[in-house]
This record gives sequence, C-alpha cells and structure tokens, in this order.
Amino acid sequence: MTQRRGVLLRVAYDGTEFHGWASQQGLRTVQDTLHGAVLALDPRASALRGSSRTDAGVHAEGQLVAFDTDRDIPARGWVLGVNQHLPDDVAVREARAVPHSFSPRFGARGKRYRYRMLLDVVRDPALRARAWRIPELDLDAVAREGRDAVGTHDFAGFRSSSDERSETVRTLTRVAVEREANPRLVAVVVEGSAFLHNMVRILVGTLVDVGRGRLAAGAIARTLAGRDRRLAGTTAPAHGLTLERVDVAWPEGTGEPWPP
Amino acid sequence: MTQRRGVLLRVAYDGTEFHGWASQQGLRTVQDTLHGAVLALDPRASALRGSSRTDAGVHAEGQLVAFDTDRDIPARGWVLGVNQHLPDDVAVREARAVPHSFSPRFGARGKRYRYRMLLDVVRDPALRARAWRIPELDLDAVAREGRDAVGTHDFAGFRSSSDERSETVRTLTRVAVEREANPRLVAVVVEGSAFLHNMVRILVGTLVDVGRGRLAAGAIARTLAGRDRRLAGTTAPAHGLTLERVDVAWPEGTGEPWPP
Repeated sequence: MTQRRGVLLRVAYDGTEFHGWASQQGLRTVQDTLHGAVLALDPRASALRGSSRTDAGVHAEGQLVAFDTDRDIPARGWVLGVNQHLPDDVAVREARAVPHSFSPRFGARGKRYRYRMLLDVVRDPALRARAWRIPELDLDAVAREGRDAVGTHDFAGFRSSSDERSETVRTLTRVAVEREANPRLVAVVVEGSAFLHNMVRILVGTLVDVGRGRLAAGAIARTLAGRDRRLAGTTAPAHGLTLERVDVAWPEGTGEPWPP
Repeated sequence: MTQRRGVLLRVAYDGTEFHGWASQQGLRTVQDTLHGAVLALDPRASALRGSSRTDAGVHAEGQLVAFDTDRDIPARGWVLGVNQHLPDDVAVREARAVPHSFSPRFGARGKRYRYRMLLDVVRDPALRARAWRIPELDLDAVAREGRDAVGTHDFAGFRSSSDERSETVRTLTRVAVEREANPRLVAVVVEGSAFLHNMVRILVGTLVDVGRGRLAAGAIARTLAGRDRRLAGTTAPAHGLTLERVDVAWPEGTGEPWPP
C-alpha cells in the first residue's frame, strides 16, 4: 500500500488576471489553475487547501497551499515540475514535505499583508497593477490612526457585507507605515492572526481617508466601538494589496524547503 | 497670426503590450498611441519627435517627446489632459515649454538605460515583465568585464544586422552593476551619448554570458577589436530593459516643468 504524503507549496501570483484564489465555476482562479498543474504531475492528487482566500486583483508572495499525494517526488521536483505547467502570472516559489491532511489555514499562526500606495499627482504605468495612487497623504496621521487598530478588538465594522461569520473578534499585532525603496511608494503593513473578508482593505481605506482629510481622526476607534461598516472609510482597491507571508506552526514531520 | 510653440513631454510606459516606440502601420505603438492623445487636445498638433526608438517590450521612465502646437496650454494642462486620453500602460510624467521645432533626439547629451536581472532559481510573477531571470551569475565578473566597454570605441560588433549606419563609433561613460532594493534584483546601468540598435541588449547579453561562464572573460574587448557580432554573446531579452532618463542641453526659451 502506498503512503499518503502531504506537500506544502509557497505560491506567488499577480492577481490582476485572476478572479481571486478560490475556485469558481467558469472563472479563471488561482486555485483551479494551480490544481490543474498539480494534477499534471499526479492525476490522483487531492484538492488544494489554501491558507487565505484572496480576492480578485489581490496579489500574493506567500500564499501557502497544501495537498496530498501518493507520489514520492522531492520538494525540488514539485517546484520545477508544477511551474512547468503554470502560466507566467503564478509560480510555486518553494515546496516542502508536510504530514498528510495538513491545513495551512488552521496551521497559520499569523499573516502579513502589505498595502502599497503611490504618492504622486500623475500615473506611473510601471506601478499601475501594484499600488493605489493617492496624490496627497498625511503619513503621520495615517501612522497615528493605525495604532488604534492594533490589539484584540471586535472588527465587525471592518468587513464586507458578504462576510456572515458570527465571531468577529480578531487580533492585529502590527499596523505600520513603511517607506519603500522608491521614495514615492509607501506601504501599510498589517499583521495579525486571522482576518475577516475585506478587513485589510477597509482598514487601509479608513486610514487613507483620515490621511487625506475625508474622515476626522478617530475613525478607527469609532468604527471599532460602533461595529458599523458605515463609520469606516472607503474599501481600498484590491490591486494595492499583497499577501506577503503566512507564518505556520510547523507540525512534526515537516521537511526542509527547496530552494534552501 | 498665432504663435507656434514647442511642448516637451517626459513619457513613461510599460513596453509589454507595445510594438515599440516608432509608429508602424497596423501595430500598437507608443508613438501612435501618444499622438492620438495629443491630437485629442489639439487636432493641428505636429507629428511627435521622440528621443529614442525603443524596441517592442522595452520600457521607459524617461522617454522625451516633443511636438509643436498653436494652443496656449500650460504644462500642467498638457500632463493632465493628455493622460486622460491614454491607456494605463503609458503616461505623461512631466511637461514643459520648449522652442518650436526642438528635437529631443539631437538635443540629447546623454542617455541612461537600466537592465534588470532577477537572480533566482524559480520564477517570480511580480517581476515577469521587468527583469531577465538568471539562476546564477558571477557579478564580479560582470562588473569587471563591463569596464572594457567604457570609453570611445567602434561598437560595430554590438548592433543588430538591421542597423545600417556607417558611423559606429560611440562613447559610453558608465557601465556599472547595481544592487536594487530587492536583494534578488541586480541591474546593469549603461550611460552614453548615443546608441546603435540593440547595443545595450547585446552588451548586457555578452556581460551575462561571461558572468555565467558561457563566454571567456575578454569577450567585450574581442568584440570591439573584431567589430564582429559573432564574437559577442546573446542579445538580452527586451523586457529587462528600461530607458531611464535622457539628459538634454536645454535651449533658451525652455520653461519650468510641471510637476515642479
């Protein structure tokens, strides 16, 4: 009898041409595209288990994806083999062995999102799919306002109406403004254990609305207290957002990654 | 009688979906796309005069483009107005008044190209249209070899067969390897007064072939001395190349740029 093994992939994609991570009938999704490439190496591979359901247009550098297989392929073989069957806007960046049935969603200890903004009065074609352009922004006000979101709060006011989960308490460990190497690019980095639907985009949109004077300071605290989406700001557009990394409590039996 | 005025635009584009700068019947080019947008503001504007004929797939941050007009529109109006009529992979980044008939090609004192390389064993979707991926490269060897190209030389061995100019002596003032903010990204920066067709891409391809051991050190010097394309290395792919800036000797009557 063959041994059922788990494989964990770290996957990067440009979300522009995808209808998000999760499989949808008749639409081009990352999950379906990646599953097709995995099946090319093992037609009996299990369904894919992703760590995060990213929306249409959202990018990833560190989406984690697990599946089970009977095939004894080393990590390097999964990386190079699956990549051969993928289009150029998605790639396996790393692979490692994990116990079968491992769930990168339930195994996740924390996630880091990076929301990029281009501070410029004119468009920049090189960044059009990567950063939300904002002509003028008070970065100090954004950083100050962001501190109110750190900690354990009821984030019911920071989710899309499509999110119907009853438990809306989440913990954010970090909300910070970072300058990028390009001096016109800044990022809001958000770290936490788990997120509601659109939570990062509504949080960033609220910070930006405070930073450009469309909302009075204190909007984060008011929305947390009122638990009302209407107290928050705009939903920041998807294309500025990247799922940067997912931290996992590695179970016993996890192998070394390739590339090392 | 109206006064004929010159306008100079600094234009950025993502070259991926363009068949290069220069107008070509039936093909999508930057020149034709930009001309259409200028004509939307002034149907009697002259033809466009570009500083550099970039190839299909090559990007620009600092292409300079001049035209003449009778309309008295301030620099800000040209930037915002033309951008309203452009698709999102090309944008006017800056405008200023220049004397009519000004030529950014003959007025150019120097140009800087940046050729980006991704040093990685696996693909990265975010950089697929911006950097040539090379798994392993001896950067010291590339930098050393690059020094042989600096100076005034006959670059006849570093041009495509389609370039039939009789004068092939050019001056490079700088060929340098630079690390970018992303530690896996490196760039070869090439500065000079003027360039032959494909000169930067053949130069970079030769440096890379030395740096990955496909050509013996000294290939640049041998190709310069032999004036023979067959002594040089591969032509580096277009998508790694960006026309970064063009320096101009400003004529009397040049206005202030917008944005300032």
